[in-house]
Amino acid sequence: MRRDVSDFSNRLDIDKLSELLDIPEHRITGALKRKTLQYVRLNPELFRFDKPVSTIEGGTSVFIDTYDVVRGFPKISRTLMLDPALRQHFSSCQKVAVEEKMNGYNTRIALVGDAVFALTRGGFVCPYTTEKARLLIPMGFFSDHPDLVLCGEMVGPDSPYVPKSFYGVESLEFFAFDVREKLTGKPMPVMKRRELLDGYGIKSVRFFGEFDVDKAHLGIPRIIRELGSSMHEGVVIKDPDMVVAPVKYTSSESNCSDLEYAFEFYNDYGRDFFFGRVCREAFQAVEWNEDDESLEKRCLQLGKSILLPMIQTIKKRKAGERIAEDVRIRVQSLDTVTAFEEYLGILGVDAVFGEPEKVGDEYLVRIRKMYKSTSDKTASILNGGMWS
Amino acid sequence: MRRDVSDFSNRLDIDKLSELLDIPEHRITGALKRKTLQYVRLNPELFRFDKPVSTIEGGTSVFIDTYDVVRGFPKISRTLMLDPALRQHFSSCQKVAVEEKMNGYNTRIALVGDAVFALTRGGFVCPYTTEKARLLIPMGFFSDHPDLVLCGEMVGPDSPYVPKSFYGVESLEFFAFDVREKLTGKPMPVMKRRELLDGYGIKSVRFFGEFDVDKAHLGIPRIIRELGSSMHEGVVIKDPDMVVAPVKYTSSESNCSDLEYAFEFYNDYGRDFFFGRVCREAFQAVEWNEDDESLEKRCLQLGKSILLPMIQTIKKRKAGERIAEDVRIRVQSLDTVTAFEEYLGILGVDAVFGEPEKVGDEYLVRIRKMYKSTSDKTASILNGGMWS
Repeated sequence: MRRDVSDFSNRLDIDKLSELLDIPEHRITGALKRKTLQYVRLNPELFRFDKPVSTIEGGTSVFIDTYDVVRGFPKISRTLMLDPALRQHFSSCQKVAVEEKMNGYNTRIALVGDAVFALTRGGFVCPYTTEKARLLIPMGFFSDHPDLVLCGEMVGPDSPYVPKSFYGVESLEFFAFDVREKLTGKPMPVMKRRELLDGYGIKSVRFFGEFDVDKAHLGIPRIIRELGSSMHEGVVIKDPDMVVAPVKYTSSESNCSDLEYAFEFYNDYGRDFFFGRVCREAFQAVEWNEDDESLEKRCLQLGKSILLPMIQTIKKRKAGERIAEDVRIRVQSLDTVTAFEEYLGILGVDAVFGEPEKVGDEYLVRIRKMYKSTSDKTASILNGGMWS
Repeated sequence: MRRDVSDFSNRLDIDKLSELLDIPEHRITGALKRKTLQYVRLNPELFRFDKPVSTIEGGTSVFIDTYDVVRGFPKISRTLMLDPALRQHFSSCQKVAVEEKMNGYNTRIALVGDAVFALTRGGFVCPYTTEKARLLIPMGFFSDHPDLVLCGEMVGPDSPYVPKSFYGVESLEFFAFDVREKLTGKPMPVMKRRELLDGYGIKSVRFFGEFDVDKAHLGIPRIIRELGSSMHEGVVIKDPDMVVAPVKYTSSESNCSDLEYAFEFYNDYGRDFFFGRVCREAFQAVEWNEDDESLEKRCLQLGKSILLPMIQTIKKRKAGERIAEDVRIRVQSLDTVTAFEEYLGILGVDAVFGEPEKVGDEYLVRIRKMYKSTSDKTASILNGGMWS
């Protein structure tokens, strides 16, 4: 449910956008009518593509004051078996570059007019992420490259979306995994990008090296096991020239950790979420040719990841608690808190903000995200309601 | 996909049906237009309600030669926690009757014109089940009670839908759990029904006795554990007078066995199928207040039920096999085989029939049901395709 995303179509210069994006006007008017292209009443005002339209990715944002366009981040395909998927997908490449896939939230940082803004995957400007981006990214990068977008993962315990503390990050850090042209989305080759960012002191995700395409499936499992053992998510495998689209592959530990999270809020998460992760486990077990002992371990881990969080949720509800997730943000300006609260409201997130606590020269704000569907469904069954 | 269920609406006397079912004509014409009320070109010809319309259950069949109407079998609600669900649901009753819920397929047997036919849950006449019904049910029952429908479970190893061999049935047996009025669906009180059928030598599902409503949740877990330990499915809890609707409750073993089956054909089964069963496990663990050891056992069992069959399927496919389920039927007449093959075709089931083998005075026919979606998806991933 997205409130306040309503009919402001007349504020969009359709002619101009059609030319900028190189798509016919009727595709834009059609998208506006279907609300696939939506007005977002926040500051700065923008229109966002909720889904792909023609050649334009979902999550693409159009800022209507300046007509800056930031293209959406493309969906990355997932392989469930490295062999022969890598050889086949990268058949036109000699080598593949392997980078870490971190578990935070996808962020694009771009210059809009003369200020820096941070966009979430969906193409909304997040006021909190924007404050952090302005702190973390030296303005020199955008002065030198106003037409580039920094794409990366925002990671750390002060993440209001995916709080993780195992990355050794104190608050929230940005790790780049792509640099793209703002208007076209065209990516930069891997090493060129890493060197460019290094020059500005901008962090990149971990680089595991380049592998011969024919041998990558032999080297990557070792990386995945190592990453998994410290709860890290997985890797993205890339054409070093970024001509062929990248492919992702994740650790069993990360799949299970996702399941644990989702089953705590079992009635608020899509059922496909569960299914996809189970399938990853089965294919990995086959590719790794696991023996009975390893299989039993994997089955137990899967079962625990599903049942234990859900059982905890039922017990909590039985004890009268509402089902919620506690997250926190750390800001320099209290205005950011107000803007972030308004922003979550527009996204339809039911969140209760605590009083800001002064920590050094910053404010820590604890936020309780309420999971109404899980709370209600659990209470209904505990009170004698039928499943269906 | 249901082929041959096309537009024969003009063969239906809408006036007459409206009067018989006591619903307005426009509901019938609307249902015909939306194909919720479908013509089935099999012998005997009928119209079936694919979904509920007004007060008429999905699965209700209207035979157009005789205008016999057989009402659909009502959906039975499921409880995930016996307490306080039973006290609440049966608050107007003093006692509840507990009968076994067997794991076969729901069948209604009725007199249509002067012959007996067997209907599946969806309201199709199944030619194979019809042959069995005519063998198993003494005609005397229907001569005496032409307006009653026998509702029950067809169970045994010669089931083409749910073959199970642990019931001690040699081929296929019918176990009644309801007797209802053909036109209205009105059910008969539990003990009256069991005695009536007993008089005709018609088997009923197992009866576990009557329990005080306030105490049923204490007695039923023992029954469920006993049933589960021999892979039996669970119980249906009923108002002895059949005024309040029944409620079902199943064993963990049966949930897991369902999951095992579904994950063998993982891409052909709905994702809700998995989700519901997982939730049953979590609520049962809470209601039974399980200790760490029992919980660990439950988690391992759940994980195994999900992963092991799927891993087997992937390995089979890797070895070049197509994914299929082998079932069998046993018939007295070869005409039944032909009719059953045509019937599966109309349901859109891809099945390969073996040559009939003479066994005593009957024929055994092996049927291979092909699971195309699972075969294709698995092959695609093994051949290097992406998950999405």
